[in-house]
Amino acid sequence: MTTFRPLYDRVLVKRLEAEEKTASGLFLPESAKEKPQQAEVIAVGTGRVGKDGTVHPLTVSQGDLVIFGKYVGDEVKLDGIEHIILREEDILAVFDR
Amino acid sequence: MTTFRPLYDRVLVKRLEAEEKTASGLFLPESAKEKPQQAEVIAVGTGRVGKDGTVHPLTVSQGDLVIFGKYVGDEVKLDGIEHIILREEDILAVFDR
Amino acid sequence: MTTFRPLYDRVLVKRLEAEEKTASGLFLPESAKEKPQQAEVIAVGTGRVGKDGTVHPLTVSQGDLVIFGKYVGDEVKLDGIEHIILREEDILAVFDR
Amino acid sequence: MTTFRPLYDRVLVKRLEAEEKTASGLFLPESAKEKPQQAEVIAVGTGRVGKDGTVHPLTVSQGDLVIFGKYVGDEVKLDGIEHIILREEDILAVFDR
Amino acid sequence: MTTFRPLYDRVLVKRLEAEEKTASGLFLPESAKEKPQQAEVIAVGTGRVGKDGTVHPLTVSQGDLVIFGKYVGDEVKLDGIEHIILREEDILAVFDR
Amino acid sequence: MTTFRPLYDRVLVKRLEAEEKTASGLFLPESAKEKPQQAEVIAVGTGRVGKDGTVHPLTVSQGDLVIFGKYVGDEVKLDGIEHIILREEDILAVFDR
Amino acid sequence: MTTFRPLYDRVLVKRLEAEEKTASGLFLPESAKEKPQQAEVIAVGTGRVGKDGTVHPLTVSQGDLVIFGKYVGDEVKLDGIEHIILREEDILAVFDR
Repeated sequence: MTTFRPLYDRVLVKRLEAEEKTASGLFLPESAKEKPQQAEVIAVGTGRVGKDGTVHPLTVSQGDLVIFGKYVGDEVKLDGIEHIILREEDILAVFDR
Repeated sequence: MTTFRPLYDRVLVKRLEAEEKTASGLFLPESAKEKPQQAEVIAVGTGRVGKDGTVHPLTVSQGDLVIFGKYVGDEVKLDGIEHIILREEDILAVFDR
Repeated sequence: MTTFRPLYDRVLVKRLEAEEKTASGLFLPESAKEKPQQAEVIAVGTGRVGKDGTVHPLTVSQGDLVIFGKYVGDEVKLDGIEHIILREEDILAVFDR
Repeated sequence: MTTFRPLYDRVLVKRLEAEEKTASGLFLPESAKEKPQQAEVIAVGTGRVGKDGTVHPLTVSQGDLVIFGKYVGDEVKLDGIEHIILREEDILAVFDR
Repeated sequence: MTTFRPLYDRVLVKRLEAEEKTASGLFLPESAKEKPQQAEVIAVGTGRVGKDGTVHPLTVSQGDLVIFGKYVGDEVKLDGIEHIILREEDILAVFDR
Repeated sequence: MTTFRPLYDRVLVKRLEAEEKTASGLFLPESAKEKPQQAEVIAVGTGRVGKDGTVHPLTVSQGDLVIFGKYVGDEVKLDGIEHIILREEDILAVFDR
Repeated sequence: MTTFRPLYDRVLVKRLEAEEKTASGLFLPESAKEKPQQAEVIAVGTGRVGKDGTVHPLTVSQGDLVIFGKYVGDEVKLDGIEHIILREEDILAVFDR
């Protein structure tokens, strides 16, 4: 299995499956453009870099369910599954089911 | 019920209903474009991030009535109700009824 | 009556009436576009936010007469009267009559 | 008489009259576009705001003769006389006659 | 043999060969435009420069396998082999096989 | 004679005459567009302003021969002679004859 | 002979001759546009200026062989020879032969 270490403020996420979305109580219509997307956090970077160069740990952790803007991030296929690499600032909120 | 934790300087709000607006003494004409909107704060992030990376608590709190610019934020439907995720700097003022 | 708490460096102002303008000795021609406007400060935010996240009190206070650029700010109608929400940096000067 | 208190790094100036210009030894052709202009400083703000929010006193003072770029600033008519409100960084130099 | 010392936050990388990619479990389709690329780190700079001018060591080291955005960096041919010079912030993640 | 005090990081310069240029060993072709220009420093400001608002003395001094980009600065005619007001960061280098 | 003192983070370089390039083991095709260029450092400034105004010495020194992006810098002819004035951040790497 491939392991993945996102850099600094980057976060690796995997989009939620349809059944997972239904269970979340959070409804994000597919049809609307630029609506937020639901995903699970798979791996996080060491932290965001302040202007003075120091690194501050991220707020999200592995396993968190998050929503993020539709057109942000880079897509990678990891062990056959689509993932997305985001910057933490592109994540709008963490939610619980 | 879904719980929601906005990140950093983000704020989850719900637009006020027509009767709530009338009671507020604050009149924001529907017809005018880009006029501010009235909303109630539902959940707030941990704080805005200074350039040095430290986090400063937000000024608005859950239950506050706020106004914000019409075309800012991301829409999400939470437990069947439309909500908006804003950055705190998009909130113009808090008002009391 | 509605009370209003502008956020951070925001300032709530009300444009001066015609007779108040005449009395001010300050003449700002109506016809010219993008000329400054005269207004009275109604409420001020807690302060402007430095890049390090700290908050510094504003220079203008309630009751000050100010001028500001014509096309800045957001309009709100409060208890039936037009007001404008500005950022303090959009205020050019305070004047006395 | 109206008194005027420019905010922060703003400076109130009055353009020099033709005879004052001739006496200055400084020639700025009227015909050329975007050439600097000559003016006298009438009032200055409390200072420019550093990125950390602290305020630093201005370098120019009341009575200084200055030159500034032609298309900067906001025009106001004060006690019947045209004035301009500039930011101090738009002032290129102070000169003596 | 030519030795190479990238400056500050710059990183010299070499794209992975086809067989190396297959072994990585990381699949990045060739056809899709602007998809991330896989590479090995050959040399790194002394560190990224904070806004105050101090230098902070990089996170990636020689020998790391990384992915980066397709259209970033400058190409150089070193001892007959194509290499790319990136800024560290263009590197999305480090991965292990 | 008019004296001139440039503000902060501004520098007053006078273009070199043809014979002075020939003597300099520095050849800057007239025909090429956006080529650097040769000039002598006549007066300098108190210093450049750091982001925290402090002022740092300039590196160039009165009498220095400098080169700067062709299309930067503001032209002023001082005691009948053309001068240019630059920001110090527009000066590329100091040279000696 | 003309001496040359680049300001702050500026660096004076001279492009390598064809035979010097061949000896370097570094091949940068002439035909490709916007490919990096090879040069020798002739003189360096006192250092780059941090946001707080302090000056930090440069990493490159006189005699270093460097590569830089093709379309950066200003050209000057010094004692009959073409040179280029760069900012240090436009230099990608130092290499040894």
